[in-house]
Amino acid sequence: MSKTSTYLIRPNPADPRLTERVSGIDQSGAKIDTAVTVERALTIFLNNQEIVTAMTINDYPEYLAIGYLLNQHMLLPDDVVTAVDYDEELAVVVVRTQRKTNYEKKLKKKVQTSGCAQGTVFGDLMEALEDVKLPDTQLRTSWLYKLTSEINTTPSLYLEAGAIHGCVLAKEDKPLVYMEDVGRHNAVDKIAGWMFKEKVSPDDKIFYTTGRLTSEMVIKTVRMGIPILISRSGFTAWGVELARKANLTLIGRARGKRFVALAGEQRIVFDQDLAYVEEESTKHRRKAAVHED
Amino acid sequence: MSKTSTYLIRPNPADPRLTERVSGIDQSGAKIDTAVTVERALTIFLNNQEIVTAMTINDYPEYLAIGYLLNQHMLLPDDVVTAVDYDEELAVVVVRTQRKTNYEKKLKKKVQTSGCAQGTVFGDLMEALEDVKLPDTQLRTSWLYKLTSEINTTPSLYLEAGAIHGCVLAKEDKPLVYMEDVGRHNAVDKIAGWMFKEKVSPDDKIFYTTGRLTSEMVIKTVRMGIPILISRSGFTAWGVELARKANLTLIGRARGKRFVALAGEQRIVFDQDLAYVEEESTKHRRKAAVHED
Repeated sequence: MSKTSTYLIRPNPADPRLTERVSGIDQSGAKIDTAVTVERALTIFLNNQEIVTAMTINDYPEYLAIGYLLNQHMLLPDDVVTAVDYDEELAVVVVRTQRKTNYEKKLKKKVQTSGCAQGTVFGDLMEALEDVKLPDTQLRTSWLYKLTSEINTTPSLYLEAGAIHGCVLAKEDKPLVYMEDVGRHNAVDKIAGWMFKEKVSPDDKIFYTTGRLTSEMVIKTVRMGIPILISRSGFTAWGVELARKANLTLIGRARGKRFVALAGEQRIVFDQDLAYVEEESTKHRRKAAVHED
Repeated sequence: MSKTSTYLIRPNPADPRLTERVSGIDQSGAKIDTAVTVERALTIFLNNQEIVTAMTINDYPEYLAIGYLLNQHMLLPDDVVTAVDYDEELAVVVVRTQRKTNYEKKLKKKVQTSGCAQGTVFGDLMEALEDVKLPDTQLRTSWLYKLTSEINTTPSLYLEAGAIHGCVLAKEDKPLVYMEDVGRHNAVDKIAGWMFKEKVSPDDKIFYTTGRLTSEMVIKTVRMGIPILISRSGFTAWGVELARKANLTLIGRARGKRFVALAGEQRIVFDQDLAYVEEESTKHRRKAAVHED
């Protein structure tokens, strides 16, 4: 870790619980050993009610549980969480609140959104977007280039074993929390859980994802109250439409010097001289190609 | 389309319903126009029961509905489908069966699997794997290289607009059905629906996906009865474990000349002289990098 790192949480690819060595063969038929990412089942309870079983790398079960419930609107921003109990052996995490909860009805009808669907009620999502007013912050292009370059060179599980998603919460040009998980929604939820627990304001934050800018990703970012969403990947039409409706700054295909902004362009301040920005190195292009799913 | 194409179904990137032109700005602040993939809500009914609302590019609503219900075990392989009614205006598709169905209970408890979760009951999944006996077919490495090279150079929505997943059903070295969708699970489900409707045997087939080899992907392939699963992307530990349990041939990181097999290696026949296989061109590497989510 460099002395100048601004990370509060970052991937720990050396953690032996997060990857597994497995043996197989390569294209020549030779025996090989390789690292693969773990997936563990974690069952989330809200008070006495079982809500969902998620597949996760399980590095932050408490943040994942809180963030999942927040992003599903089962835990409300002003709820008081009295305890979060995690039982490693049972693979169960229980979030306890002062308020009594009952989500039996809500669980019955689910909408599959594209990409990594958590199943959320469609009407609720649209409603949530209508109510939110995102702050008038700015995004300097000099921040964007510094951020993406630092994220791309941060040691991660993805560089170690692949088949994983990453999300980063940042402020100006400084990455703060970098979470990875087998499901993109888990990585987002862990950041949402961390923000709730640490009482972090979303107003001056920037959200970065390795994944596509789908409707679901836009909705989650808006719900978290973060005004800027950046991805190295592409857009879907509905993602763009929702971002425009919510006045979210939506930047995609951010690679090397290039990017495309399709919503909330007024927040962007072009302060970076592009002559001084490098294209992505072949090394990073190649690595990026593993980030597929 | 070349004269020698073996495709029965392939992407139609020129279909104006599947992409949308939107305007925005690029890294220099200049106005640009770009194509983005559409996402549409489609509600799937089984007889008189509303099952789910999926976000899809909606090119094959009937196949998607049948495949979704099959992969959720709500439609059984020997069920007689009496009608599939699609109403474009309402964005509803109804699958009607001879057998009476009632899945109210099953919908209550859902498991999120990693990647693109559809929410399926964990116990059911494990059970399904125990019962399946995959056939002792072979995979010649000469087929694998011809297949992946042809898939990578097939015009697709992904090459047009990005932010999309692809799945291909193949036989020997011949791609047969290439489906794309905003959610990877949708692309798989459309192929499952096509196989059911066309009464296609899975025994001699090969399944290719652009996405990661997660537990969910393995389970779906095994459920479809297909003995070989190939991806250009990576593995998760649980995906490998389930593939071994089910005796599925699991090949990942298939790029250019390289690949890694972590389960069912006995089906692989190394008949290809590697000196005659090309590495992926830079052009394809770059393109592959868009396939991220």
